[in-house]
Amino acid sequence: MRILPFAALAVATLMALPAAAQDLTARASALRDKALADTTGWDVVDSLTTEVGARPVGSPAAQRARDWGVAKLKALGFENVHVEAFTTPAWSRGAESAEVVGPFPQTLHILGLGRSSPTPAGGLTAPIAVFHTYREFLAQPAGSLAGKIAVVTEKMIRTQDGSGYGAINAMRTQGPVEAAKRGAVGYLIRSLSTDDTRLPHAGSANAGGIPAAALSTPDAELLDHMSARGQPVTVRLAMASTYRTDAAAWNVVGEIRGREAPDEVLVVGGHLDSWDPGTGAIDDGAGVAIATAAAKLAGGLHPRRTLRVVMWGSEEQGGSGEAYGAAHKAEVGKMVVVGESDLGAGRIWNLSLPKGSAGTPAMKAFLTAIGPLKVIVNATAPRFGGSDVEGLIAAGAPFVDFNQDASRYFDLHHAADDTLDKIDPAELAQNVAVWAAFLYTVADSDIDFRKAGAEAK
Amino acid sequence: MRILPFAALAVATLMALPAAAQDLTARASALRDKALADTTGWDVVDSLTTEVGARPVGSPAAQRARDWGVAKLKALGFENVHVEAFTTPAWSRGAESAEVVGPFPQTLHILGLGRSSPTPAGGLTAPIAVFHTYREFLAQPAGSLAGKIAVVTEKMIRTQDGSGYGAINAMRTQGPVEAAKRGAVGYLIRSLSTDDTRLPHAGSANAGGIPAAALSTPDAELLDHMSARGQPVTVRLAMASTYRTDAAAWNVVGEIRGREAPDEVLVVGGHLDSWDPGTGAIDDGAGVAIATAAAKLAGGLHPRRTLRVVMWGSEEQGGSGEAYGAAHKAEVGKMVVVGESDLGAGRIWNLSLPKGSAGTPAMKAFLTAIGPLKVIVNATAPRFGGSDVEGLIAAGAPFVDFNQDASRYFDLHHAADDTLDKIDPAELAQNVAVWAAFLYTVADSDIDFRKAGAEAK
Repeated sequence: MRILPFAALAVATLMALPAAAQDLTARASALRDKALADTTGWDVVDSLTTEVGARPVGSPAAQRARDWGVAKLKALGFENVHVEAFTTPAWSRGAESAEVVGPFPQTLHILGLGRSSPTPAGGLTAPIAVFHTYREFLAQPAGSLAGKIAVVTEKMIRTQDGSGYGAINAMRTQGPVEAAKRGAVGYLIRSLSTDDTRLPHAGSANAGGIPAAALSTPDAELLDHMSARGQPVTVRLAMASTYRTDAAAWNVVGEIRGREAPDEVLVVGGHLDSWDPGTGAIDDGAGVAIATAAAKLAGGLHPRRTLRVVMWGSEEQGGSGEAYGAAHKAEVGKMVVVGESDLGAGRIWNLSLPKGSAGTPAMKAFLTAIGPLKVIVNATAPRFGGSDVEGLIAAGAPFVDFNQDASRYFDLHHAADDTLDKIDPAELAQNVAVWAAFLYTVADSDIDFRKAGAEAK
Repeated sequence: MRILPFAALAVATLMALPAAAQDLTARASALRDKALADTTGWDVVDSLTTEVGARPVGSPAAQRARDWGVAKLKALGFENVHVEAFTTPAWSRGAESAEVVGPFPQTLHILGLGRSSPTPAGGLTAPIAVFHTYREFLAQPAGSLAGKIAVVTEKMIRTQDGSGYGAINAMRTQGPVEAAKRGAVGYLIRSLSTDDTRLPHAGSANAGGIPAAALSTPDAELLDHMSARGQPVTVRLAMASTYRTDAAAWNVVGEIRGREAPDEVLVVGGHLDSWDPGTGAIDDGAGVAIATAAAKLAGGLHPRRTLRVVMWGSEEQGGSGEAYGAAHKAEVGKMVVVGESDLGAGRIWNLSLPKGSAGTPAMKAFLTAIGPLKVIVNATAPRFGGSDVEGLIAAGAPFVDFNQDASRYFDLHHAADDTLDKIDPAELAQNVAVWAAFLYTVADSDIDFRKAGAEAK
């Protein structure tokens, strides 16, 4: 089959459009090129990771991140920059350690899971029961792990679309509760990670579990190797975390008000909070940077509608999307589209548009503009939206999702390795270019995703 | 130019050899195939890293490693298994921490350098002076860094032959002394590493320096980014190391005695000690495993001469080679050849033989046998021998060195990431096969490297 060169397709599409749409396409294409050469996205994530670093909800650094967000949005020329405060539960890491006591004394590298109970002071020492898969662990009857530390060493699968994470996520979120049901006194998992470094990966668990932590992948394999020798292996686990239900937290907001229809709003962003071990570069400094840079660039063309950037303040432990949704419920009807960038800084590799919208002049202009950016436009590409806009979506807001290549994301996610050097500036700029073209074509048109498609109610 | 297929070359070489040499070649080739399929090497390094783990000189784990070595050599059927005790200086890590105090408070990931002085209790806090290259740092005049923590962030270069390490090594070994000369109160370097993980890489410095530590590579880049903002950056460094001059240490020895000439000895090994953060898999569990497995396999054919495996007990901080050399000085004249495997577990990619020896029947048999193992035999390939046999070499022992592919070695070297999962069993087996073929062709022949070449005196 002969494949038409892309340029020919683009020209063909362009020529079929009416003059106003041609103008929109031309402006969106010029914006794309500007975004590819622009360093705003990189500068934002460099600034956040260098000047604030790790910023878990409930920490002093979260306040610094809030102040950083306000200052950054103002410096970039956003209007109506403000903070929306809320309270939310916050789990905070304390001193942690784990070691094999016998028969082969060795230090283990762990990170406690969010919402995990602390151990008694001085830690707890118990024999381990090792399971190679989460299903094997779940097959154990109630009470059968009494007095033991359950260890699950199943490996996460590397995927481009990130589905390997969803497939194994319950091992972390629900595992501590399941371990408690079976009588275990502690719970250790192989990090939900595709890397082979000795850095564990943090993350939240559901409430109600026992002391629980993630092992680095080499440490999980070490316990596999030890237990294969057939002797009982004893581990000491010590965790001194704290948990409170009313931590202060903030969503940071800035706008570029629309030229003609300022009450019609596009709501996009990333989350400002991060887990504590890294500097929150890919999760989610990148998302904050992409949304901020794209809105600034699109806003520079003074579109009809309002572009609003939200830096959500508690995604990792939950709360910021709920708070934002509750505060803005009355406004949902005026939200043209919502979306959160929160799968790192890898290039956008595929996307699907809200159902029925691909044939609109705005989306034709968008798709033409992003042609050179190597994005597969595929009606079956999944759409999620993002944790912080789930509430808005449930309330009826149309949403968009641009799928980033997550092949390497879970090497770094929630680990100390989530640092600025892992971001490829060119891939980051490709994200900014896609988002900028989208924001501009939507904001400078009158597209109504609710009308365009059956999906958007 | 037409390249002769290797098989044709090998057959041509084989056909030109007399019958006895043909037998040696055939036996060495069969040994090669056996070694490629044999798991002894893997089992040894699995056992050492799982059952002992990190084993720095002067630690309780070093004693466990000694006992492990004796038991392992006995279990594998070695004769004359014994321990040769010596005393040596030992630096031991204590609690360590580092953080940026201001203007951007962040935790730094460090590992103190061996022989580093401890800080005062509670640590020291000082502004940093960042240099992007070691030469730039050395260009600072005496006293010019008074009251500062000097930070050198030069990057190590990745190379196949490991030369990138030698090129930058002085930054770690000599830097703390040079920093002291310039008045600095602390010294931080970017880890001598080619990785991008947030795990620092340990290693020794020369005595006489100030408190000194290695930053992970992302942390070194973080300080680069902070200092680029033009404000003074203040760091707190706390290290509570201890140092003593008379730690007990041990070289562990086993032999397979020669059939006809037991007093003619081949001395090969790896070092049993490791740095503390990893489990000492590639440095140097792999070397111990390669030498042990190769000697066992070659010894299984009952060669003429004695094969001796030495697990040297203090390579990282020095002492074991010196002790072994001093104890065996009188025996050097009877040492047929010596060598240490100590550049990880990557495949052997090139080698040169002692000068003048390539034309001997033994070395012809060796080279023919390793033909399928994809080793470049190159008279200009460098030969080092190994830290623990330097003394023997200086005293006149002929030596051999098989160069391992070090492309990935310095991602892992001296870091917590030095764990078993980083070893490719097939690459490890290739090492064992090369060594086994060499040990056998030398031990079952009467080759005299002193006569064969001008180089071996």
